[in-house]
Amino acid sequence: MTSTPKLSDLAGQLADIVGAANVLVDAADTAPFLSDWRGRYRGAAQCVVRPGNTGEVAAVVRACVEAGVPIVPQGGNTSLCGAATPDATGRAVVVSLGRMNRILALDAQNNTITVEAGCQLAAIQEAAQAADRLFPLALASEGTCQIGGNLSTNAGGVQVLRYGNTRELTLGLQVVLPSGEVWDGLRGLRKDNTGYDLKHLFIGAEGTLGIITAAVLKLYPLPKTLTTCWLNIASPAAAVELLNQAKSRFDAQLTAFELVSEPSLALVQQHIPGASRPTASSPWYLLAEFADAEPAAVEYWLGERLADGSVSDGVLAASAAQAKKLWALRENISEAQKIEGVSIKHDIAVPVSRIPEFLARADAALAAAFPGIRVVAFGHVGDGNLHYNLSKPDAQDNALFLACQAEVNRIVHDTVHALNGSISAEHGIGQLKREEILRYKSATEIDLMQTIRTALDPRGLMNPGKLPGPR
Amino acid sequence: MTSTPKLSDLAGQLADIVGAANVLVDAADTAPFLSDWRGRYRGAAQCVVRPGNTGEVAAVVRACVEAGVPIVPQGGNTSLCGAATPDATGRAVVVSLGRMNRILALDAQNNTITVEAGCQLAAIQEAAQAADRLFPLALASEGTCQIGGNLSTNAGGVQVLRYGNTRELTLGLQVVLPSGEVWDGLRGLRKDNTGYDLKHLFIGAEGTLGIITAAVLKLYPLPKTLTTCWLNIASPAAAVELLNQAKSRFDAQLTAFELVSEPSLALVQQHIPGASRPTASSPWYLLAEFADAEPAAVEYWLGERLADGSVSDGVLAASAAQAKKLWALRENISEAQKIEGVSIKHDIAVPVSRIPEFLARADAALAAAFPGIRVVAFGHVGDGNLHYNLSKPDAQDNALFLACQAEVNRIVHDTVHALNGSISAEHGIGQLKREEILRYKSATEIDLMQTIRTALDPRGLMNPGKLPGPR
Repeated sequence: MTSTPKLSDLAGQLADIVGAANVLVDAADTAPFLSDWRGRYRGAAQCVVRPGNTGEVAAVVRACVEAGVPIVPQGGNTSLCGAATPDATGRAVVVSLGRMNRILALDAQNNTITVEAGCQLAAIQEAAQAADRLFPLALASEGTCQIGGNLSTNAGGVQVLRYGNTRELTLGLQVVLPSGEVWDGLRGLRKDNTGYDLKHLFIGAEGTLGIITAAVLKLYPLPKTLTTCWLNIASPAAAVELLNQAKSRFDAQLTAFELVSEPSLALVQQHIPGASRPTASSPWYLLAEFADAEPAAVEYWLGERLADGSVSDGVLAASAAQAKKLWALRENISEAQKIEGVSIKHDIAVPVSRIPEFLARADAALAAAFPGIRVVAFGHVGDGNLHYNLSKPDAQDNALFLACQAEVNRIVHDTVHALNGSISAEHGIGQLKREEILRYKSATEIDLMQTIRTALDPRGLMNPGKLPGPR
Repeated sequence: MTSTPKLSDLAGQLADIVGAANVLVDAADTAPFLSDWRGRYRGAAQCVVRPGNTGEVAAVVRACVEAGVPIVPQGGNTSLCGAATPDATGRAVVVSLGRMNRILALDAQNNTITVEAGCQLAAIQEAAQAADRLFPLALASEGTCQIGGNLSTNAGGVQVLRYGNTRELTLGLQVVLPSGEVWDGLRGLRKDNTGYDLKHLFIGAEGTLGIITAAVLKLYPLPKTLTTCWLNIASPAAAVELLNQAKSRFDAQLTAFELVSEPSLALVQQHIPGASRPTASSPWYLLAEFADAEPAAVEYWLGERLADGSVSDGVLAASAAQAKKLWALRENISEAQKIEGVSIKHDIAVPVSRIPEFLARADAALAAAFPGIRVVAFGHVGDGNLHYNLSKPDAQDNALFLACQAEVNRIVHDTVHALNGSISAEHGIGQLKREEILRYKSATEIDLMQTIRTALDPRGLMNPGKLPGPR
């Protein structure tokens, strides 16, 4: 980058703002910021800047905009769709929020926590727990991901059924706009009807409308008991019926409802040391968790379900350790599938009522097009969200299977679309589905998004190349 | 309007779209649509149009935009801030959604109901109940207001503590944009991360960004038991402490938590026939309701609170009829205050933790400025939202008191602002607080709102004069 004095000027200006130690230019220093954690995307940047506070972020944005340089905001860099990786031109500046990791305030009586964007999710969970409160967002990457990234992708996870997505857990935001101005919406209010609800525009915008620098998040009472069970059921339709039956009985005490197919469990049993079947074999399983329900009430409910045949076998975890083991069966599916070999993954949502139809239609269409293809379906059935993954037929080689990816995606996404669903339930669009989404969103919706993006960022410098661009 | 052929042309065009019977021009026909229900605002319009479906709304918008004529969307016309009343120029066309009152679908397994914007709130509650589900939005005007208005003002009410505002109850929208295009976002998904969440932009926008024509709303299990109690407490600080204590014990089973001051209850007792005190006299009261909690558990909890002195007296409703009587005490405060005489009202929110400080500061500042002024404070303390109303000193005459309105507003709103609160918690801005809000929002926030408004409605024809305009 020393060949273009213009760029050096900018790096120098940025060093004046954040300190030279916080402007990374050497390849060895910048490498971790230029590739996503799975190594699927690799980009380049003139430098990586690590501001220490909101004022510095604003000054960095102003300097970049003045220089006409694209800005790529980055949190814990755990995106599954390349949303935080710069493109290959090397023109961009990566703004890494990791130094802004302070818990700014915790108001136990208001049930809110105010945090900087660079806070790790796990640190927020811990701070809440220390105040006898729950911050319910929980994800596989919680020890690495940062709340700014969770907000920018509206992260989901395993407790959405009860507590909602990141969006529903957010009361206020502070954002550095593409103009370099700071919008201070750090309010901790449950009700505030004074104009457009701007925070919802920035949540899930993948950094294209500004850089989230801080947030006020909701806290909940810490559950005093958790009751976890593993249930054998006959079909996805039985899962949806049981979900509503459990909701009607336990309402908000039902906090998780996860579907696992037999092929998913079989992979875990095969590849994950120590994994053992909690029940007899069954085509489908459910992992359900209840917070603050009387364990005896859950046991009674389960007894009734065994008696009426809607559940054919089931175990209730007798200890926290046993509950953890049940959760490990669910959480290790991705890992087991990775060990098994290459796979083609989907993160889809349909109305909960249409989960059975989705599975029937997608399974049949794939079996017809790709004989022997293995469906590994599991996920948050309580939210209508499945991770619908395909493993290659036993006999096929990897390259041949991966060559079918576009065609497989088409079948799955067309089925989702026919059922009024979403081709990205919780992972976002990023670079991965930027073109794909154009097939399924109306021109009106794409235009509306583009109109807003252009209005807020007329020069198109905020995380360009992420989310759909103009048609 | 016959004096300007241009306008007649438009009315004729509109009649071609919706049928002549659905274009009202005579003064006797249009009068109910040109004034708000409280008679605080009175406007004029060239006509009132009553479209029967979304296509007609879109055609009406296109015709008005082509003619350069302002559009005022109107639902049940129950706004408390003049948000649905046209201005006095007579240029506008009022688009009344009342004919679009069909329940389009109810998906019990997905826990969603799809409705047209003109559905009365009560009709939606009833349709949900008929399917053994709860639509939890509940307001005083539910027999008159329409869901399109509830959405456009993000209505609150008495169950926000458990279920959230209208915004949190909405999964999808269909909107006619200022361009006359239809955005079809009628999705019933719990998770959908495919770009900006456009629905949140239209919810609470008071019709300035388009006309909401239909919505997909969340349903919940119908509670099987409700337990209602009336509690005597010493202070607002005791209310906040008890709120958190009850949340920790009952979590989502706590569905309402309403604060009532002794002067509020005294007015009800004085003016509402049949109203009687359920407990001994106390400076403050709470009305708390629990859904699906064991009544014995609530009784035990109340016993503990009486024993530890945090509640000095209390009754648990022994029947639905008695619960209704307790709710009537809370719901009749506005009516009683109206009978008592003129009042100056505020709909404010602060962080729940700061409710005691708000009351102490506002009470003291008002007492100093207006000796003898009577504070009638009550409301949704569980959401940090109070209706903080002032009645005139006994000896003062009405005109003299009302002349102080601006000064009283200033004291109350400055106190709210100092505590990082909102001057409109659930009623919106409309015409009423259009200037006032400019004192409290940052220039950056007003500009951001204006940028979005101009981007979506470049000609400024959607409900002009509502929400803040450009500085």
